[in-house]
Amino acid sequence: MSESIWRELEAEAEALSKRHLRDLFEEEPGRFAAFSLSLGDLLADFSKEKLSPHALGLLFDLAKLKGLEARRDALFAGEAVNVTERRAALHMAARDPEGDFEAGGEPVSAAVAETQERFLAFAEAVRTGAVRGSTGERFTDVISIGIGGSDLGPVMATKALSPWHDGPRLHYVSNVDGSHLADTVKTLDPARTLVIVQSKTFTTVETMTNARSALAWLEAALGKEALSDHLAAVSTNLEATAAFGVPDERVFGFWEWIGGRYSLWSAIGLPLAIALGAGPFREMLAGALALDTHFRQAPLEANLPMVLGLIGVWRRNLLGCGSVAVIPYDERLSRLPAYLQQLVMESNGKRVTLEGKPLERASGPVVWGEPGTNAQHSFFQLLHQGTDVIPVDFLLAAEPTEASQAHHAILAANCLAQSKALAFGLSEKEVRAQIAEKGVEAAEIERLAPHRTFPGDRPSSTLLYRRLDPPTLGKLIALYEHKTFVEAALWDINPFDQWGVELGKAQASTLTPRVEGEGGEEQDGSTEGLLSHFHGLRKKTP
Amino acid sequence: MSESIWRELEAEAEALSKRHLRDLFEEEPGRFAAFSLSLGDLLADFSKEKLSPHALGLLFDLAKLKGLEARRDALFAGEAVNVTERRAALHMAARDPEGDFEAGGEPVSAAVAETQERFLAFAEAVRTGAVRGSTGERFTDVISIGIGGSDLGPVMATKALSPWHDGPRLHYVSNVDGSHLADTVKTLDPARTLVIVQSKTFTTVETMTNARSALAWLEAALGKEALSDHLAAVSTNLEATAAFGVPDERVFGFWEWIGGRYSLWSAIGLPLAIALGAGPFREMLAGALALDTHFRQAPLEANLPMVLGLIGVWRRNLLGCGSVAVIPYDERLSRLPAYLQQLVMESNGKRVTLEGKPLERASGPVVWGEPGTNAQHSFFQLLHQGTDVIPVDFLLAAEPTEASQAHHAILAANCLAQSKALAFGLSEKEVRAQIAEKGVEAAEIERLAPHRTFPGDRPSSTLLYRRLDPPTLGKLIALYEHKTFVEAALWDINPFDQWGVELGKAQASTLTPRVEGEGGEEQDGSTEGLLSHFHGLRKKTP
Repeated sequence: MSESIWRELEAEAEALSKRHLRDLFEEEPGRFAAFSLSLGDLLADFSKEKLSPHALGLLFDLAKLKGLEARRDALFAGEAVNVTERRAALHMAARDPEGDFEAGGEPVSAAVAETQERFLAFAEAVRTGAVRGSTGERFTDVISIGIGGSDLGPVMATKALSPWHDGPRLHYVSNVDGSHLADTVKTLDPARTLVIVQSKTFTTVETMTNARSALAWLEAALGKEALSDHLAAVSTNLEATAAFGVPDERVFGFWEWIGGRYSLWSAIGLPLAIALGAGPFREMLAGALALDTHFRQAPLEANLPMVLGLIGVWRRNLLGCGSVAVIPYDERLSRLPAYLQQLVMESNGKRVTLEGKPLERASGPVVWGEPGTNAQHSFFQLLHQGTDVIPVDFLLAAEPTEASQAHHAILAANCLAQSKALAFGLSEKEVRAQIAEKGVEAAEIERLAPHRTFPGDRPSSTLLYRRLDPPTLGKLIALYEHKTFVEAALWDINPFDQWGVELGKAQASTLTPRVEGEGGEEQDGSTEGLLSHFHGLRKKTP
Repeated sequence: MSESIWRELEAEAEALSKRHLRDLFEEEPGRFAAFSLSLGDLLADFSKEKLSPHALGLLFDLAKLKGLEARRDALFAGEAVNVTERRAALHMAARDPEGDFEAGGEPVSAAVAETQERFLAFAEAVRTGAVRGSTGERFTDVISIGIGGSDLGPVMATKALSPWHDGPRLHYVSNVDGSHLADTVKTLDPARTLVIVQSKTFTTVETMTNARSALAWLEAALGKEALSDHLAAVSTNLEATAAFGVPDERVFGFWEWIGGRYSLWSAIGLPLAIALGAGPFREMLAGALALDTHFRQAPLEANLPMVLGLIGVWRRNLLGCGSVAVIPYDERLSRLPAYLQQLVMESNGKRVTLEGKPLERASGPVVWGEPGTNAQHSFFQLLHQGTDVIPVDFLLAAEPTEASQAHHAILAANCLAQSKALAFGLSEKEVRAQIAEKGVEAAEIERLAPHRTFPGDRPSSTLLYRRLDPPTLGKLIALYEHKTFVEAALWDINPFDQWGVELGKAQASTLTPRVEGEGGEEQDGSTEGLLSHFHGLRKKTP
């Protein structure tokens, strides 16, 4: 049944492959109006996707056949949509403390509201100096120790919202590489530093290794008695946090129905709340909530996450694109691509259906990117003239925040120029005319024209918003979250588990003794060879 | 002629697709020895590439047929290998000031040595305080303004070599987004800040826009007379630097035969030299020179850039991989993926041959990545269980630099574990046995096993070195440079031009008046729609 729609989609993709985006714009004067959507100040322009009205219609048919709206409703109803782990996925509850969410029939919103009150009150107390270090000094610096979902969200958002940052300085330590913590504490004063340990289970190897080293750093300067004044934790393992020396009132939990990569909105956002204060933090949640409401209520055809998710599937399965570039024209969004990398690739990098059957079509793409205009001077060469087509998501604010208007005009012009150049290109004929105008001789024109030709016909979408403020950031992130869910639903995969991270973890603990040179299991030829060189190189150290 | 080797390669790839990496290791006990190479302390293990001895033999045949060694010799001889621009590509000359390089028959090494002496002497003068700001204070901070090739190299290397950083603090401003400069100067004292403007032509829009704003910031605090004391430039446009107010003795040039993305070794490295001092900077050059010498002299079969380049082509054209993940297990190499992104994608993201004919095979892949172990908690899910195969380059030091040994053992174990897990996986049978051991009931095993299965058979290479110090960094970067050249030679493309960045640049300047609301050309429907929303949103600003 859905196979016949797939075949129609494939036929339409094939038909479109013979037409250039230039043709589509020429033939459809109303293309921008038909292929763009707004939610308040947020506009999504997908008119430069390699898409026809017929293709979009087929995608809507696919969505209906796949019961997308019912799946969305099940998500919000707190059903166990994370089927392998038999859990709900209710990160939306964390941005709506006054809601009435239920996880598996149990009400959760009261607990959300209570925890949110607690961690925001603690954040404010750190900011005002009501909570201080062991010597009575105010906290000027906060080290947040966490990794993956306990790190990327707060890191990304702290940078994105830096104009609102008026609390203590924030430092994020994630990598188990000892240089991360060592380089961070180099300039810090332990007496004025608060350490927040972020680990749901309080067993993540990287986080606990860094936390123990941070504890040693605090203790060496301040003594054992002082430690409890300098610690807080985000975890559900109260026994372990207590054993670690974190006072219970400084432990903030979340729930099994909030996955790590969806946890920015929960107590995992504590460092961000310390940086910004409770007000802007709540505004960010409110922005995300507005997007949730839109996702729940807007009809399929006017529903941003639905439409962008369908386009994601179109790019991936019908155009055959293996990766997507995310290019925010905003230096403060420089960690957004890394954040979305986790969100999309950990959610949708799956190879079996919900029922455990091998997928017949490709699932989640690689997501990567850097901010514009920088990216133009780096990898845009390949986007314009490489042999593969890479779809791009552009992000742009109409207004700068605490920055020059003159710079912003150049920034914005570049963003618009790139999507235009990708879509429309410059034909060899146009190139020849341009070079000829400069009085270049015929042989030289002949020689250079192919190198200076731009095929164009390369798809992109642009997200345009008024300015990058807390509610806008909340909206953007929630939009990508739900878009990722929509794609997963179309692929029939579970975006909420991550079994693929387990094997490496298990093997790392088996390998640690061999690396430390204290025996351990024999390994394959490559690992043995690497271990032998590793130990050989260490012996050469003076 | 080469087509028949391609067909043999395709046949071998097809044959290998039916065998698992596990089988290859079982059948070839000497696989690690045969599929790894060393240069001093640097080991490259490519035994976990999906490669057979026969395939590698065919790749060597292809290299010979393509005249790779002659092409390399032409590169080092300073021939106009950048054919479209009729230029040599002699970045190697910058790391060998005592060499006897010629560009198009003209000797260049004396000029290289002279410029290097000048910019390193200036770097030392800034470090010692011999050169000071207008008020007589020492420079505590340096802002380097540049973009793309004038930015990514120094940024990457400054972070990589932070244990050697004992000069003034470095700040890099690249994005024309005004927040980049504004957020940077927020905490700086103009009286103690040196501004270096990096632009070969001194016309790069982003760099000159930022430079003018930085000048205004300096002037507002120190007055016009003071400016010349606070400026330096890396440029070949002496007229423009003088007009900008940079004293001639503070302008350091480079040459048309050093491309931006290959310019770290030239005066573009000035900020890095200020951070580290001339000694470590020269050690980095010496490391790169050692790799150059190896590339020039080692026989094809034992030549690191040759072999890794051939493997790059194997991954891209025979395995069909559209992207490569670069995962340094080193937090200080966090910008290496972005650096390599430019190096590889701007060099090899091309669609026509040297002669201007459309390529018949895919050229340069997308390069992306984040440091390990962080990446394990983000996108490794997709690397292990996604539907596409993404080859990985792992990088690992045997010894940490100024960081904990205990942390390093965990870091190294994780690096080895990930390449092992990718290669060998965990079969459904093994998964079932593992789950059953925990006493889980049959139906549950049935339900979970497919989700917890790892197909393995996913290729990676590992670069292992003693520690990340200046010579090692030099070696690594030069290795990737030459590997990129080898791939380009195999694809018959010019890795030294970048025509693909021109169209967007031209269109941005056409669009700027429209963004500023002052007329300008009518645009396509999408650009018009975006402009109209852009201006609508700005009107809403309170």
